[in-house]
Parts: sequence; C-alpha cells; structure tokens
Amino acid sequence: MPEAALRPGSTIGILGSGQLGRMLAMAAARIGLKTHIYCEASGPAFDVATHTTKAGFGDKPALAAFAAAVDVVTYEFENVPVKTAMHLNAQVRVHPPVRALEIAQDRLVEKEFISRLGIPVAPFRAIDSAQDIDAALAELAEPAILKSRRLGYDGKGQASLQPGADCGVAWSAIGANYDCPVNTHENGILRRSVVPSGLPASDLERARELAAAIADALDYVGVLAVEMFHLGPTVPFADRLVVNEIAPRVHNSGHWTIDACAVSQFENHMRAVAGWPLGSTQRHSDAEMTNLIGAEALEWERLAAQPGTCLHLYAKREAREGRKMGHVTRLLPKRGPTS
Amino acid sequence: MPEAALRPGSTIGILGSGQLGRMLAMAAARIGLKTHIYCEASGPAFDVATHTTKAGFGDKPALAAFAAAVDVVTYEFENVPVKTAMHLNAQVRVHPPVRALEIAQDRLVEKEFISRLGIPVAPFRAIDSAQDIDAALAELAEPAILKSRRLGYDGKGQASLQPGADCGVAWSAIGANYDCPVNTHENGILRRSVVPSGLPASDLERARELAAAIADALDYVGVLAVEMFHLGPTVPFADRLVVNEIAPRVHNSGHWTIDACAVSQFENHMRAVAGWPLGSTQRHSDAEMTNLIGAEALEWERLAAQPGTCLHLYAKREAREGRKMGHVTRLLPKRGPTS
Repeated sequence: MPEAALRPGSTIGILGSGQLGRMLAMAAARIGLKTHIYCEASGPAFDVATHTTKAGFGDKPALAAFAAAVDVVTYEFENVPVKTAMHLNAQVRVHPPVRALEIAQDRLVEKEFISRLGIPVAPFRAIDSAQDIDAALAELAEPAILKSRRLGYDGKGQASLQPGADCGVAWSAIGANYDCPVNTHENGILRRSVVPSGLPASDLERARELAAAIADALDYVGVLAVEMFHLGPTVPFADRLVVNEIAPRVHNSGHWTIDACAVSQFENHMRAVAGWPLGSTQRHSDAEMTNLIGAEALEWERLAAQPGTCLHLYAKREAREGRKMGHVTRLLPKRGPTS
Repeated sequence: MPEAALRPGSTIGILGSGQLGRMLAMAAARIGLKTHIYCEASGPAFDVATHTTKAGFGDKPALAAFAAAVDVVTYEFENVPVKTAMHLNAQVRVHPPVRALEIAQDRLVEKEFISRLGIPVAPFRAIDSAQDIDAALAELAEPAILKSRRLGYDGKGQASLQPGADCGVAWSAIGANYDCPVNTHENGILRRSVVPSGLPASDLERARELAAAIADALDYVGVLAVEMFHLGPTVPFADRLVVNEIAPRVHNSGHWTIDACAVSQFENHMRAVAGWPLGSTQRHSDAEMTNLIGAEALEWERLAAQPGTCLHLYAKREAREGRKMGHVTRLLPKRGPTS
C-alpha cells in the first residue's frame, strides 16, 4: 500500500548539515514542508532549516527526540552510520532505504551488488594487503585507482596507482530520469556537469535502464545517483557503459536541475520522501554547472555579474583548499529534444 | 560613492514575516547571505530565516539589538511604520529608501508624487467625507473605486462605487527591468500574471521609462513594482499607460521570475540591498503564474502532479478565505524575443 502523502506543514528530518542538506531544506520550503536538520556539527544547512539538533549519531536520547519531532527521515550523505539509520527506522520512516546506505558505504559490497544484477562495473579487485596490489595490477593490466572501501569522498581516500591514470570523462544517470550530464573531474573532485551530454540516445536509454534496475533492486525511494563510465563508441553497445558507483542521495552532478528544470533533484527527493507525486524532470534549458572549489568562491562578485549565470554559495566560513564552496550554473537555450 | 558589497555570510535584516519575506530569505540563502526576520508575529518567513526576532515595531531595545545584529535592513511589506524605518535608518543602512515607504503608504500622497513627475495616473479625488464622494463621482463621470488612503492590500480597504466597475486587465512594470506581465485580478486580489504580455514593444518600452523615472526620483535601491493600467490601442500613445500604484518591494506579479529567470526578483532585491552586481533579468521561458487563494491550496496534491508546473506553498497554517496560500507557475517554451 503506498504511503499517504505528508501534508504541507509536515516536517522532514535530514541527517547531515552540509550543502546538500541546505539545498534539500530550501527545496522543501518551496513546497511548504518544514525541515529538521540533525548533525554532529552545525553546517550550511543549519542556516535555512526550520529546526536543528546538534548531537552525535550515537546519542540515543537525541535521536529519539528527533524521531518524535519529524514525520519522515532522509539523509544528505552516505556516511551516516547504518546503526543510526536502523535505530531511527524503528521509530519513524526512513527514505531512501537503509539497505541502500549500507551498500553505498562499502565500495566492495557496492560493486558486488551491482555485478550480481548483471550490470557491468569497472573492473575491481579487493585489496587487503600490499601484496594484493601487485597481484591486482597484474590481473587488471590497466591503470588503476586504489580506493578505501569506506568513508571516501571528493577524491579523499583515493590514490592513483599509475600516474596519469585519470578516468577522463565520466557521467551519471540520476534516478527519477533527469537528463544524464557529462561530468568532468579534476583531482578526484567533480569540476563540471553539462547537459545535454552529446551521447547517442541509445546509450542514454541504456543508462536509464541500468539506473532503474539498481533502484528497483533496492526498493528505492528518493533520488539515486548512478555514476557510470562511457567507454566510447568503439566498444560494443552492451559493454559500453560500466557503473562506477552509486550515491543514495541527491548528487552534485544534479545541481544543474535547480536552474534548468521546473522541479529540481532536491525538490523531487523531498517529494519522494514525503510520498508526493513527483514533479517534471524535463529541462527547459541547456546547462553547464561548474563547482567553485576553495578560493574560487572568493571570485563571487565577478561571478555574480556574469549574464545568464546562476550563482549558488553555501555560506561555509572558510574557503579551504579542495572544499566545495558553491557552484555556478550557466543556462543556454535548449538545443536538442531531451538527450 | 557606491557602497561596498556585503561579503557572503553577511546578514540582511528583513522587516515582516510573510511569504515575500520567506521568498527573500530563500533567495538570500542561495547566494550565501544570512537573514534575520523581525516582525510582531511569527509567520512563513520564520521557517527559513537564519535568525528571527518577534517584537513590536515600536520596541526600541529590540530594534537596537536587531540593528546591531544585521548589516543592512530591508522590508517585505509597505505598511512597516515609517517611524520604525527611520529609527533603524539612524543605526544601519535601510534599503529601499524610507521615503519610498512613506509615499507608498498613502495612496493620495503616492498619486500626487507620481503626477508631479509628469506621469499619467488614474484619475483620483481626495475623499474626506461622504459628501466628497458625490462630488468626485460627478466630476470623474466614470465608475470609481473608493480606497482607504492607508493600510489597504489585496482588495481590503476598497469598495467599488458602481457595480461591475472592475478595472479588467491591469499590469505591472517591475523595476530592474523584468519583462512586464499582464495581470488579472479577481475580487481585488491578483489572480494571474502572464509573460509575455502581448502588448506592443513601444508600450512596454514606455512602461519601463515611466518606472525608471519613478525609481530615479526616489534614489531607489531594490526592486520597485509599478502597477499601470493599459487603456488600449485606441487611446493616444502618451495617455495609454496610467500608473495606478507603486510597491517599494518585491511584488506578487514578479513571482514568475523565480522559475522563468536565471535570477529572480527576490535574489535581485537581495543583491541590490547588499550592494552586489545585479543578476540577469532575462527570462528563459514564458510563464503563467496563478495565485492559490484560500481553499485552492488544499488541491496541492493534484497541482504537484501537473507537468511543467512549479508549485510554491507558503506554509501558512490556516487556508482562510481570500488569503494567499501559494502560487503555481507554469513554464512554456519561450515564444518571442523579450516582449
């Protein structure tokens, strides 16, 4: 039985206080929903939420009070302890499912889960010791990246095993069927997402199917980001797209949807979590989203003056190196249909 | 000397806690600015602001604390007591200028001010007694509307002096040069704003000039809404547009800019108030904005499911008759250039 839609004025609890939580809270406010941010430390989301709780993810009395104060719980980053999510799930609905969190938290479990669905993944080997590295490199016979199984993000917890072994162009299929952008990365951090991607319609359709298969296998509710590599037109169709990783949450590569779609990834995530009908995911404009990393955000006055540019700043106090401080989306008249 | 731009992380104080304050606070958050709402009663803006103060507009200690806590002050409704604005202005910058507030608060002063600029206004007479009504109607020889000089909004404080004397189609020119929508009213409340207006480019250009003349005369900073009547193509060009009233603030007839422009009226108001470069006011889509009044907002689930529709709810607790509860903006592919 589908859950009844939460009425406007209901409160959505969000675990995590970063910029994704901030943009979720703003999207919720747009449609008359309140938010309650729960996090160990205050952060950008605290400025715009209706309510906030600063407490540890293991603080059971605080979690119980939070669960009692909200109508549903979601999370803005996938490193929320699974224990915390399970604990809350016993008291209040949690969306997306805790299982998705569990899988996304461990890169090895994630790749094995996706493989079992018959979906191609980037070749991988489990590394438990230094000797394993040599064996894996010999088997894979390719440049490789060593990644921690847990707690990595934005290139942290990663090391290139061969210089120059960057994956080049990657791209994401976002659940709820937003158009797939082409992503480019620098130093392991997303630099730019562009729609339309310029990829053939048949590849885009396949990407949507793969993402949908993963979402279905998880009984998923909410926005799911699936990052894939496109290996180029010379690779046979069925092998051309390989899944790299999933994020059970709104994703940086969907920030362009705020400005180029009637309903953004953030609002659609809130709608899904609240049991509402999903809004249109069609884009009305072409878009180029560029992250502002570290000191780049100090250029805000120049960026604010650029025509056709949407500036987003996350109100982080310190522009530390490698830190996502904001993003700009440049809107362009829509060229193609929806590719 | 132009004021230096406030740095991201600065705080903008907003007098008033209604839906306009709410949308201003959300727009400020987008560009990394914090907000502090000051109002006699809590309201929709309290949910999304960084800080809030609930205190009277005559409470000097509370006003002093507010002035000390913010970097600049603006207002979201024109019935903020002029005394309050002047009191704050002695301690902290206030934008738009207090003079604009003073003029907009009194319909007679407003019409006389605009007339003195050589701008046509809808014919008016001062009414101080019941006898004045008969004399005025005889002189004007037209259907007329009796309006209180002060504190009227959304048709409140108005009475039609002849049945069926509604003004039909009115429209607004919004400062900062957004495209002029055509507005339709029902029962004295804005029902719908549509861009493009379909009016000739020469009339639209004249509307922009009239609005700019008013803004210039006020040394204006911020978004200024100027409501005009278009008397039809048979009326000579110079008499065709008459100004009905001005609103020294963001305005309901500019809500479509949230979804159809890279930078909305709310963000551009915040930018102007903060001394930032203004963002692009070009629209990327055509738009039809319809207000949700009273019980209409209870249809939110059906409205949320409509394709190409942006739903906005203000999180007001009670859907009272005649109360603006939200709005929907329908986006359509852009037809003309910018008319």
